[in-house]
Amino acid sequence: MEENFVPFGGIKNDLRGRLMCYKQDWTGGLKAGFRILAPTTYIFFASAIPVISFGEQLERDTDGLLTAVQTLASTALCGIIHSVIGGQPLLILGVAEPTVLMYTFMFNFAKSRPDLGSKLFLAWTGWVCVWTALLLILLAILGACSIINKFTRIAGELFGMLIAMLFMQEAIKGLVNEFRIPERENPKLAEFQSSWRFGNGMFALVLSFGLLLTALKSRKARSWQYGSGWLRGIIADYGVPLMVLVWTAVSYIPSSGDIPHGIPRRLFSPNPWSQGAYQNWTVIKDMLNVPVIYIIGAFIPATMMAVLYYFDHSVASQLAQQKEFNLRKPPSFHYDLLLLGFLVIFCGLLGIPPANGVIPQSPMHTKSLATLKHQLMRNRLVVAARKCLSKNESLEQVYGTMQEAYQHMQTPLVYQEPSTIGRLKELKESTTIEFVENEIDNILPVEVKEQRVSNLLQSLMVGGCVAAMPLIKKIPTSVLWGYFAFMAIESLPGNQFWERVLLVFTAPSRRYKVLEEFHATFVETVPFRTIAMFTLFQAVYLLICFGITWIPIAGVLFPLMIMLLVPVRQYLLPKFFKGAHLQDLDAAEFEEVPAIPLYLENEEEMSSSASFGKSREILDEVITRSRGEIKRIYSPKVHSRSSTPSKDFSSFHSPGSDSIYSPRIGELRGGQSPRHFVRGLSNEGGRISNLGRNSQSSDKFYGRSQSAL
Amino acid sequence: MEENFVPFGGIKNDLRGRLMCYKQDWTGGLKAGFRILAPTTYIFFASAIPVISFGEQLERDTDGLLTAVQTLASTALCGIIHSVIGGQPLLILGVAEPTVLMYTFMFNFAKSRPDLGSKLFLAWTGWVCVWTALLLILLAILGACSIINKFTRIAGELFGMLIAMLFMQEAIKGLVNEFRIPERENPKLAEFQSSWRFGNGMFALVLSFGLLLTALKSRKARSWQYGSGWLRGIIADYGVPLMVLVWTAVSYIPSSGDIPHGIPRRLFSPNPWSQGAYQNWTVIKDMLNVPVIYIIGAFIPATMMAVLYYFDHSVASQLAQQKEFNLRKPPSFHYDLLLLGFLVIFCGLLGIPPANGVIPQSPMHTKSLATLKHQLMRNRLVVAARKCLSKNESLEQVYGTMQEAYQHMQTPLVYQEPSTIGRLKELKESTTIEFVENEIDNILPVEVKEQRVSNLLQSLMVGGCVAAMPLIKKIPTSVLWGYFAFMAIESLPGNQFWERVLLVFTAPSRRYKVLEEFHATFVETVPFRTIAMFTLFQAVYLLICFGITWIPIAGVLFPLMIMLLVPVRQYLLPKFFKGAHLQDLDAAEFEEVPAIPLYLENEEEMSSSASFGKSREILDEVITRSRGEIKRIYSPKVHSRSSTPSKDFSSFHSPGSDSIYSPRIGELRGGQSPRHFVRGLSNEGGRISNLGRNSQSSDKFYGRSQSAL
Repeated sequence: MEENFVPFGGIKNDLRGRLMCYKQDWTGGLKAGFRILAPTTYIFFASAIPVISFGEQLERDTDGLLTAVQTLASTALCGIIHSVIGGQPLLILGVAEPTVLMYTFMFNFAKSRPDLGSKLFLAWTGWVCVWTALLLILLAILGACSIINKFTRIAGELFGMLIAMLFMQEAIKGLVNEFRIPERENPKLAEFQSSWRFGNGMFALVLSFGLLLTALKSRKARSWQYGSGWLRGIIADYGVPLMVLVWTAVSYIPSSGDIPHGIPRRLFSPNPWSQGAYQNWTVIKDMLNVPVIYIIGAFIPATMMAVLYYFDHSVASQLAQQKEFNLRKPPSFHYDLLLLGFLVIFCGLLGIPPANGVIPQSPMHTKSLATLKHQLMRNRLVVAARKCLSKNESLEQVYGTMQEAYQHMQTPLVYQEPSTIGRLKELKESTTIEFVENEIDNILPVEVKEQRVSNLLQSLMVGGCVAAMPLIKKIPTSVLWGYFAFMAIESLPGNQFWERVLLVFTAPSRRYKVLEEFHATFVETVPFRTIAMFTLFQAVYLLICFGITWIPIAGVLFPLMIMLLVPVRQYLLPKFFKGAHLQDLDAAEFEEVPAIPLYLENEEEMSSSASFGKSREILDEVITRSRGEIKRIYSPKVHSRSSTPSKDFSSFHSPGSDSIYSPRIGELRGGQSPRHFVRGLSNEGGRISNLGRNSQSSDKFYGRSQSAL
Repeated sequence: MEENFVPFGGIKNDLRGRLMCYKQDWTGGLKAGFRILAPTTYIFFASAIPVISFGEQLERDTDGLLTAVQTLASTALCGIIHSVIGGQPLLILGVAEPTVLMYTFMFNFAKSRPDLGSKLFLAWTGWVCVWTALLLILLAILGACSIINKFTRIAGELFGMLIAMLFMQEAIKGLVNEFRIPERENPKLAEFQSSWRFGNGMFALVLSFGLLLTALKSRKARSWQYGSGWLRGIIADYGVPLMVLVWTAVSYIPSSGDIPHGIPRRLFSPNPWSQGAYQNWTVIKDMLNVPVIYIIGAFIPATMMAVLYYFDHSVASQLAQQKEFNLRKPPSFHYDLLLLGFLVIFCGLLGIPPANGVIPQSPMHTKSLATLKHQLMRNRLVVAARKCLSKNESLEQVYGTMQEAYQHMQTPLVYQEPSTIGRLKELKESTTIEFVENEIDNILPVEVKEQRVSNLLQSLMVGGCVAAMPLIKKIPTSVLWGYFAFMAIESLPGNQFWERVLLVFTAPSRRYKVLEEFHATFVETVPFRTIAMFTLFQAVYLLICFGITWIPIAGVLFPLMIMLLVPVRQYLLPKFFKGAHLQDLDAAEFEEVPAIPLYLENEEEMSSSASFGKSREILDEVITRSRGEIKRIYSPKVHSRSSTPSKDFSSFHSPGSDSIYSPRIGELRGGQSPRHFVRGLSNEGGRISNLGRNSQSSDKFYGRSQSAL
């Protein structure tokens, strides 16, 4: 695979790819029905709460020039635009911490200059945004995102871990501050007496740990043993927002007595309908008043912001499209960067801080949509199985019917053998629908409901937050800190770096347990010592990056450290690790794999009929289970069979496949995206990546299907 | 089975039985080595902490006449005596809540009488104790404990649940009071200002929930995936005491600042070396100063106390010897009640409140000893397996050797087929010691290390607490409340009433999961509706009992409500439920099952060699797993085979078996104790109590062993 540096080449490719599925992006989302609300609210909270918190931070640091109203508005506007005309709708946009740090730095600079001052600050940032946007547009046109494929798993996951650490740090800092007198507050207020501060801090501990623990528990509600399936489904889907409400309610319990009004501390946000709130929306008028020297000088922070946005946006997009999700629609790195350029200008002229692709919200979005798709597929299969069982058919027949139903839903992969669903675990004489239902979770591969509706809806809801400010103010800040910790923890499962850290700390006698569950290939192919060394290297690198974020302003540029990983990975690491091991640990080989045709019409049909299925509980553990790699669509036997995949599968090209989709995995996915969609296919020598009953059952199945052919 | 009301008959029987194994009680315990310290410290904390807390309560209610020093001294003295010359060494003695309530009532009565007053209060209680003791001794001689076998599972478990509820109530009450000004304290102190009270309450929430959650987690440390086996073993064994230390340390973190000395509130206990503390040890001198009318009148509270102690002591003993523990040594209800009588006199003359058998500590003691025994057996089997594997023997041979090693340890059951250990799950070509080690936990039956050392040591440690009072005072009261909640929760698993409540709330589609794990017979034999109705009845009865404890003084007599269950069970319940269902739900049939010979020497040998085995982690989940009945020693096939057990096994009588042990299960266990040791053996019609892989693997095994014979 060569990098595509032809000007506009990448953008054209992206546009072509996404336009092909643009209509399906909407119809597919709409036909999922009310169920789309579960991922939507989940992501809405994950998106809105940090943005509000960063807005509060910005308010303190810019003397109230920019507030949560502005950060929310920017997130909502950019989100709406991106979800409608953006490329990859899985990507979530928001005002992120680095942006806040940049704006704080620029505010301090502007305030110190008498010919700029805080009055012209927003106008000046308008110019910074203009320069940033020009640089981003240039990068997009020149195909700079092709470089993103040099960012292998090691870089993406290190970045993900770093963000998790920063979120956790934010949570801890916030909690510690609950014991202190807040800056810029009157320390003589009753609630800032040492006694009340002590009480406030302890109450904050109760509220934040309460939120954290209950939110984590509620996410696993589907696999609870108690309560009706309907209730468990609701809790798993809406538990996190619900817990924010519950703990906000709890925070009002003690306020009946003689406790001062300020305990517990709550969000402080301005009234969006006040006079001052409109002030900065007319920044464009002041922009020409900025002295020329500053207009030119704005180029310096602009380069930093461009590097930051280029990196953040692309990596967030990349993490939202990891190969374990088995995405079917093409990526859109180049076009999305171009659009980001325009969004930055737009925000700059409005005087609001720009939004860019955010971690961990973007991968969280994809995960929650995978759960949704799983539910939809499950419904369809259960309906099929129920029909069979009512006719008293054997398990063999039930399985056949389910396979057929699955194939019907999965036309895109119909010609490719490995896309069959797994095998029902055991043939039992008396099959019940309960048994089949519970097995379905094990046999369904991970797929994602790729559409634009959830992203648009969540952006609209973020916009609604501006209006709902008086309600949002009721949330205690301590609930916020708990939520930050929750997000940090939620982002860990599925991150192989994290999985490896856990593996290193796993007792040697318990390592077999890792093998029994779904796990990444490296667990079996790479010696433990090598895994440990590689993980240690990554951990040290992570700590260095984390240390850099503490350096006052250079800290904003920690993405450069991540970029430095590219040469480190390419030239330094191969000196210490074997190539094959590095490939498995880092997933950094680039093979071309032929196309898998995609029939959009059939997928649509599937969603529409599936949405009529009865609402059933599922084990979303399968998708977001807390250890091991996310379940693979490719069954182990395939690994050994297809060591030369391009030949094996060349005959499977569908005559109806479009030219875009034909070379999609090979050129678009494998090319423009840094991920390796079907890496497993080219593994040499028949590795089995799922030991235990799964490999056995699929062995059985393939043995049988071959003899049947 | 007929009841044994021959005077002294029961006591003689008990004495004969326990004397037979008296030497082994000591040697077996001593030979377990340092490992005995794990259950010892576990029970020491479970025993000491409530006793200290009840002592504090008593101090408030008796104007400081009786304090934690007295309750600790009573618990220690009675514990030491019972563990040395008592019958059943699994039984833990302690000053319990009902005793505290009785003493409070008697103090209020004495204070209101001018010719008695608080000065003669202790002398008067001495008389109450004398009467109580006489009644208890009479009950013991007349064999009243035979009636205890009328207390079926329904009564014992209802009582256990009630105690759990009372402990939980204590925890909640305690926590709520942390927000209030304590009685008999100076409300003008800084720490009782509303601001500090708020902070104190919130801090208490943090400490108590911290202790509760970490203690519960630490008990499961053996099955953690992370950390070395050695560390996990330590945490599982000593985690609960460790957590008390950790959270006590945490409580000192904020005290560096300007926080008043009294936050968080800590235990208030008198100095045991002060002058006043010796005052009541000379009560015996005052006893003759008590007016005769009061000496006679003391008979009224004495009857209440006798009923209470008779019931509490016997039920605690019964719950410590439930049939799932597969105990090998005989019970000793009659003799223990006799001894309790003498202990009550002893305490009465010393002027300290008497101790009796306590729940949930006694069953907790047995459970922790089952874990210990499991570890010892495991070591032995692992050593045997390791030897085989080093010779490259097949799994079949390994299993044979392990079976032999087990038989060697289990000579008492050598002639009885069902006493074989389970079957290794799957035959794998390459067997590793890790695989075998992990399987061992699944194949070992539950057995208990029955000895006297742990009980003696924990009593001595409780005695040591009196000296260590200055250290104990450092524990925050909030940690105590967390510990109460912990004990309540720890006592629930294994309680079938609780399991049934959970089953009722289990989603219908998840009920198969209950069947996949170890579970009680009723799950399969009784219709769900009947289970639900029976559980509802029990729950309503429980709530009535709980309500009665709230009635000021009559509340002490809630055991009468439990006694009322005997006629209810015998005459009322059969009108609503089918006999067979009741039998399964309540385990109330009385069959005679022939003897199982017991060779003490061999068991000793086992312990001594096992204690040399390497310390290995085990999954004590098997023993204390949180759902389902505790694992059965009898494998499913046996149920169907031995529908007429007395005939089947009559030929298995060992010539070397002692007359005591010969009819042990039939007469002693099945007779004097209300439990049904091998009830499973007489089930009709081949029920299989463990579905899923366990039944399959044992099916396989029996199929094979039959053909081999």
